[in-house]
Amino acid sequence: MYKGPASGFKLERESDYGSPAQNAAVAEIVSAVRSEGDAALLRYTEAFDRVRLDASQLRVTEAEIQAAYERVEPEFLDALRRAAANVTAFHEKQKRQSWIDVQPDGTMLGMSLRPLARVGLYVPGGKAAYPSSVLMNVLPAKVAGVPQIAMVTPPATGGREGIDPYILVAAAEAGVTEMYRVGGAQAVAALAYGTESIPAVDKICGPGNIYVALAKRAVFGAVDIDSIAGPSEIVVLADDGADARFVAADMLSQAEHDEMASAMLVTPSERLAREVEAELARQVATLPRREIAERSLEQYGAILTVSDLAEGIDVVNKLAPEHLEIMTEDPLELLGRIENAGAIFLGPYSSEPVGDYFAGPNHILPTNGTARFSSPLNVDDFVKKSSLIRYSREALRRDAAGIASLARHEGLEAHARAVEIRFKEGGDQ
Amino acid sequence: MYKGPASGFKLERESDYGSPAQNAAVAEIVSAVRSEGDAALLRYTEAFDRVRLDASQLRVTEAEIQAAYERVEPEFLDALRRAAANVTAFHEKQKRQSWIDVQPDGTMLGMSLRPLARVGLYVPGGKAAYPSSVLMNVLPAKVAGVPQIAMVTPPATGGREGIDPYILVAAAEAGVTEMYRVGGAQAVAALAYGTESIPAVDKICGPGNIYVALAKRAVFGAVDIDSIAGPSEIVVLADDGADARFVAADMLSQAEHDEMASAMLVTPSERLAREVEAELARQVATLPRREIAERSLEQYGAILTVSDLAEGIDVVNKLAPEHLEIMTEDPLELLGRIENAGAIFLGPYSSEPVGDYFAGPNHILPTNGTARFSSPLNVDDFVKKSSLIRYSREALRRDAAGIASLARHEGLEAHARAVEIRFKEGGDQ
Repeated sequence: MYKGPASGFKLERESDYGSPAQNAAVAEIVSAVRSEGDAALLRYTEAFDRVRLDASQLRVTEAEIQAAYERVEPEFLDALRRAAANVTAFHEKQKRQSWIDVQPDGTMLGMSLRPLARVGLYVPGGKAAYPSSVLMNVLPAKVAGVPQIAMVTPPATGGREGIDPYILVAAAEAGVTEMYRVGGAQAVAALAYGTESIPAVDKICGPGNIYVALAKRAVFGAVDIDSIAGPSEIVVLADDGADARFVAADMLSQAEHDEMASAMLVTPSERLAREVEAELARQVATLPRREIAERSLEQYGAILTVSDLAEGIDVVNKLAPEHLEIMTEDPLELLGRIENAGAIFLGPYSSEPVGDYFAGPNHILPTNGTARFSSPLNVDDFVKKSSLIRYSREALRRDAAGIASLARHEGLEAHARAVEIRFKEGGDQ
Repeated sequence: MYKGPASGFKLERESDYGSPAQNAAVAEIVSAVRSEGDAALLRYTEAFDRVRLDASQLRVTEAEIQAAYERVEPEFLDALRRAAANVTAFHEKQKRQSWIDVQPDGTMLGMSLRPLARVGLYVPGGKAAYPSSVLMNVLPAKVAGVPQIAMVTPPATGGREGIDPYILVAAAEAGVTEMYRVGGAQAVAALAYGTESIPAVDKICGPGNIYVALAKRAVFGAVDIDSIAGPSEIVVLADDGADARFVAADMLSQAEHDEMASAMLVTPSERLAREVEAELARQVATLPRREIAERSLEQYGAILTVSDLAEGIDVVNKLAPEHLEIMTEDPLELLGRIENAGAIFLGPYSSEPVGDYFAGPNHILPTNGTARFSSPLNVDDFVKKSSLIRYSREALRRDAAGIASLARHEGLEAHARAVEIRFKEGGDQ
């Protein structure tokens, strides 16, 4: 873990674009699924997941979903439903309307907004299968009005039997309309190009391993994709009044995710820096995921001291963290100077897990410095816009010379003539 | 050109992902610029553009911009300014506010919206340098509030002297804050990673040749990019009342762009289909870009007959065209059934060039069927969002058990503890 002045620190974590062999494997899988459909899906599922299926078994049945409901604890379902209600309420506030602007000369200009017709969600197998991520991916699409949401997930991994019931219940609660037991690059290809059993979608969301990420890159263009999740970060910006136990606990909630995660404290307080270091050591010792958290702290953790909060803000804006917690005397005083952060948590009771699970804002956030230009997953990501243009004869006559002038300066004579023909003999009735 | 029932037609134009040699060349250029900065820029400029510069000459001077103003015709400048005013006014209507939702328990949730800090615009050299595209790229960023907008464009191509004065004037009018004479993959790399003379940006926009497109793909992630423009389309959906001369003229305004462009008519009227075919032949004969337009029509043009307008709408939604013109008796009657189109032009006086140049909506639109999931370039493309979360002690206490339950079901103990520590002895003051 780096400890010292912020000026000496730079967080360097390259994104993983895969090895040539991995890219070639993905290209082959995508091409096979595109040309062979279900047959390729079933072949790869047997090869990679060691599960033999026929095409009729790809889709998860209603009975299986009902069985999953009987396997999850009532308090889990209750918490999930409360979280889902909060996430839905927050995303409802992001919705926008189509609009038009009509003018006295008969011109109408506007934007028409529509939900995407069909979205696919990838849910990884094994330990990375998070019911909360199912909610966070599906509910914005649902709020946007997407009528068809198809989920794909590996049929079974790590010796488990079938698909995790918590995932099935979260998907059903969120409003997934179809679920398929297929994973890996082959599942991404099926969503992008369609097979006999799995109709193609317009956009693919959700995290996955390197093969899934490379497959998403490979099919981008044929369909839209969400951002490719990189390693995750938290920065805590805190002053001398902050409670070191809270700061350390929140840093560890990031560090336990995976070894590539980065947890950082930025503070002008030497006292806090020392105490947080001690608290990290104390708290990490009893964590079930101690090894992961320790490795994360060692490689990418940092306690950065700054001369004052103004320098701290500069450091934060350069890091552009996925999560930012501000634990200072008056967080709102600083908020307006934060340029780059995926989610901003204000004050001592806004611990990051509040946002990960419950409050309502999305936990799918720009990672690895991309908050400079990217945003949390939101309703806009599932809406497409069309411009609307209705010109009247009067308006076109008024603007015809200007349009023709610009067109001819660009050497596009047919553009000029398309306007002028409306006012030539026989075209001007 | 395909003529016949719509059911027998499929538009097939694969996107160009470049040859292995092109990708390798781009990777080398990007890597050299990233490590060597200006020196690599100047070396590639000499090799590819046959222009020898030193670093101090990279930036276009104020004097050159003033000289450009003296070289453009007053009526061009007047038309450009009127178009810019319309584009600005339309995009102003897209702006959104940050918002918060405060609750009686002290919870505050919201979204903070901010403009990107710095955007780069690529403007191609030669005949593909369109002043109107400079407006369409820059003005949405300007309206969004982006303070720094840097333009790059080749120093001179095709035997011209220096940069096209129309481009310089359009850039100055639109509000570009810096202009650099550098093009190709090397310019994209400079914008992405920065050099001594060109500070890095957060997002790169603008069209270019295959090397520019591949360079944008290569740097995506380090910076954001706009969509990679594919071949362009127009579909005219028209009934028996439409004027064949208007339809043909509008189709030709698309076909003259380039040989890959596609112009299509969809109509239930056999009479209109016949007349449009004749008009296309008549009108194309006198076009300066006749060869391009003829090649485009031959390869990708189509006159598609349908049994009725309902089938016509299905055809349009499958094609998901960049531009859609509806020339029917009552276009608004059909509008609500159009799912996929970049820009929709309603009625006989809404010729596509109105939107290309003048009305105000953006002419940078989703191409090649991507209107299924993409949108016209707009103000949102230059805004980043941050979620805001402020929980009170009371709210956290209320939700603690739910948060901890979800966290523990995902095996993330440190997440649960981060919440619980707030209410343990010593943490609960």
